[in-house]
Amino acid sequence: MSAPIDRFFSIIPAGGIGSRLWPLSRAAAPKFLHDLTGSGQTLLQDTWDRLIPLTPAERILVVTGEAHQEAVSEQLDGLIAANLVLEKSPKDSTAAIALAAAILAKREPDVIIGSFAADHVIVENSKFEKTVREAVEVAATGKIVTIGITPTEPSVGFGYIKTGDRIEGAETAREVVKFVEKPNIDKARRYVESGKYLWNAGMFIAPAKLLLEQLAKTEPALHAAIIEIAEAWDGPQRAETVARIWNNLKKVAIDYSVAEPAAAAGIVAVVPASFSWHDVGDFAAIAELQSQGRKGNLAVLGNAKVLADSSSGILVSESNRLIALIGLEDVIVVDTPDALLVTTKAHAQKVKSLVDALKATGHSDVL
Amino acid sequence: MSAPIDRFFSIIPAGGIGSRLWPLSRAAAPKFLHDLTGSGQTLLQDTWDRLIPLTPAERILVVTGEAHQEAVSEQLDGLIAANLVLEKSPKDSTAAIALAAAILAKREPDVIIGSFAADHVIVENSKFEKTVREAVEVAATGKIVTIGITPTEPSVGFGYIKTGDRIEGAETAREVVKFVEKPNIDKARRYVESGKYLWNAGMFIAPAKLLLEQLAKTEPALHAAIIEIAEAWDGPQRAETVARIWNNLKKVAIDYSVAEPAAAAGIVAVVPASFSWHDVGDFAAIAELQSQGRKGNLAVLGNAKVLADSSSGILVSESNRLIALIGLEDVIVVDTPDALLVTTKAHAQKVKSLVDALKATGHSDVL
Repeated sequence: MSAPIDRFFSIIPAGGIGSRLWPLSRAAAPKFLHDLTGSGQTLLQDTWDRLIPLTPAERILVVTGEAHQEAVSEQLDGLIAANLVLEKSPKDSTAAIALAAAILAKREPDVIIGSFAADHVIVENSKFEKTVREAVEVAATGKIVTIGITPTEPSVGFGYIKTGDRIEGAETAREVVKFVEKPNIDKARRYVESGKYLWNAGMFIAPAKLLLEQLAKTEPALHAAIIEIAEAWDGPQRAETVARIWNNLKKVAIDYSVAEPAAAAGIVAVVPASFSWHDVGDFAAIAELQSQGRKGNLAVLGNAKVLADSSSGILVSESNRLIALIGLEDVIVVDTPDALLVTTKAHAQKVKSLVDALKATGHSDVL
Repeated sequence: MSAPIDRFFSIIPAGGIGSRLWPLSRAAAPKFLHDLTGSGQTLLQDTWDRLIPLTPAERILVVTGEAHQEAVSEQLDGLIAANLVLEKSPKDSTAAIALAAAILAKREPDVIIGSFAADHVIVENSKFEKTVREAVEVAATGKIVTIGITPTEPSVGFGYIKTGDRIEGAETAREVVKFVEKPNIDKARRYVESGKYLWNAGMFIAPAKLLLEQLAKTEPALHAAIIEIAEAWDGPQRAETVARIWNNLKKVAIDYSVAEPAAAAGIVAVVPASFSWHDVGDFAAIAELQSQGRKGNLAVLGNAKVLADSSSGILVSESNRLIALIGLEDVIVVDTPDALLVTTKAHAQKVKSLVDALKATGHSDVL
C-alpha cells in the first residue's frame, strides 16, 4: 500500500446558509461563496488553496447543493467535474461526508479522507498542512482523527473534545475520551482551565472504509442507502438511484452518527491544531478577525465608497453606494442590493432570530 | 384702497439644499421637495396648503431655481404659470424676495407681501392663518412685520428678536427693538429667561413698496438691479435683462439688507406666533417631531419594509429595500438609491461637515 499521504483525499462540504450572516449570506449565496476576510477570495477559494498542498485537484471533492453548481464551478477553476458532488437537497453532514467517502472508496478502496468545511477561516496555511499531515499518519493506523482547536476563551458556541493520553509515536496526537456538546459558561470555564479540552471544529480525517464501517454500526439504513447511491454514482444509474433514494436519507450530523460512537469505541484521536482558526459565525466575529484586536477601527469588506467619521465596527457592502457613517461604536452595517442590516456587535447573534422572523412574515425573497 | 388682506400676496422662496439632511436632501432634490413629516405631502405642498386660506392661488408666488421648475410645477397643481419665478442661479434671500415683491408691485402697486419659507413645518394651520392676518393688518399701517416664535428651549441654532412695547390697537403685535444673531448658550438662556425674545423664523410681511424702499436705502445697486429685472419680467425683455444682470446680483440675506436696518429705523413689528413651528433642520429634529416626545420609538419615513428589534430613532427610506435594525438607540438611517447614511441623533449636526467632506473629495455626484 502507498504512503498514507498519497492515499489522502480532501472533501469540502460546502453547505449551510449561515443565517447569522444575513443579508450577506443567503440561501442563494451562502457564507462560503463570500469573501469574509478581505483576502480577495471567497472562503471556498481559501479552503481550496489551503488543501492544494496536501491534495492536488484530482484528489479534492466538493459536496454542495445543486443550486450552487454554477457558483462553485466558477469559483474553483481547478475542480475536476467528476469531483463535484451535487446534493439534490440538504441532508446534513453525515450524508454529505459519507457519500463523498463512499464514492472515493469505490474509486480507490484504500483512500484516507479528510473533511474540511468550506466556510471556516484559517490563516496559517503551512501550519494547517503540518497538522493535517500528522492527522493523516494517525488515521492510517486505523483511527478516526479530528483536529482540535486550543480554546482562546471559554466559548459556549462550540462543542468540546476531551483529550486523553498521547498516542505513542505520534508527534502531538492524543486519544479522544469523548465529545461534549456546547456547554454553559461555567462548564466552558472549567473545560478551558483544565487544559484537557479542545474546541471541536468539525474536521475529520479517517480511512474511508473505517468511517463507513462505523456508520454501518450506528445508522445501518442510512449507510446502506449511501452505499447504494455511491455504487451507482459513476455509472449510468446515478440519476435514477438518487431520484429513488435521496429524499428518504436521514438527516443527522456526523458528530452523532460517527464521531461520538467512535470515541466511545476508543478509535478516535485528536491532533491539536497549530494554526489559528475562526468559524466567522456572525458579523461580530468577522469584525474581530478584521480588526485583529485593534480597538476603534472600522473594518470594510466589499467595494463600498465609505466616508466614516469616528466610527468602529464593520461595514460589509455588496452595493456600489456611497456609505457614510458618523459617530457609531461597534456598529455592523451590511448593505446589499435588496436588504440592509444595521445593528451592533453586541447584537450580532440576534441576526438569526431576525431571519426566523423574516421567514415567519413571508419575506423569503430576501432570505 | 381695498382691505389689507385683499391686497395680500404670499411669496414662497423655495431654495436652500438643507445639507444637514443629506443624503435625502440634495442639490437636485432639496428639502422642500420631500415629505419630512409623514403627512403624505412635501414641505412645499404643506406650505401651499397653509397659505391658500389667506391667498388664493392667483396670489401665491413661488421663487425657485430653474432646476426645480418641473418638480415644483408637478407638486403644486394650483400654481399659476406667471407666478413661478425661476432664479437663474441662487442669489440668497434678498434677491429672491425683493424680486418677487417688485414683480408684484409692478402688477399691483399697493400689494402687501408675506414671505414664507417652503421648508418649515407648521402643524396648526388655523392658528397660522390668524397670526398672519394680524401681521397683514399691522403691515398695512406701514410696518415690516415679522412672525416671532416663542422659544421652547435656549436654542443656539436660531437668531432672536428682541421685542419692545405693544403696538397700540394691535391684538398681540409688538415693536421690534432689534434682531440678534445666533447667540451662544449663555446668551440664549438669558434671552429665553427674560421673556422678551422670540425666535426669528424668517417670515416677513410688509407692503412691497416699503420693503423695496428700505432695500433702496441699504443696498441701492441691488435694488436698482432688482427693479430693472422686475420691470422687464412680464414683458418681452425678461430673458435679455436676466441674462445681462442676474450674475452680478449681490448675495445677501434679507435679515441684513432689510430687517436689521428697518428695525434700527423703528419700523419693524413682530406678531408672536400662536402656532408651533419647526425648521426640521436635521434628522434629529425630524425624529423629535415624528416621535412627539415619545421615547424609544422608531419613526419611519418612506416606503421601506422595516423589521426593527428594540431600536429607536428615525429611518428615512427612498428605496424599496428591506431594512432590518437591531438594538440601536437614537439611530439615524437614511437610505437612498445611491447613498446611505448611518449616524445617531447626537451626531445629526455633523452631517453638514460630511457633505463638505464629500464636496472636497469629488463626490459631487451624490450631493
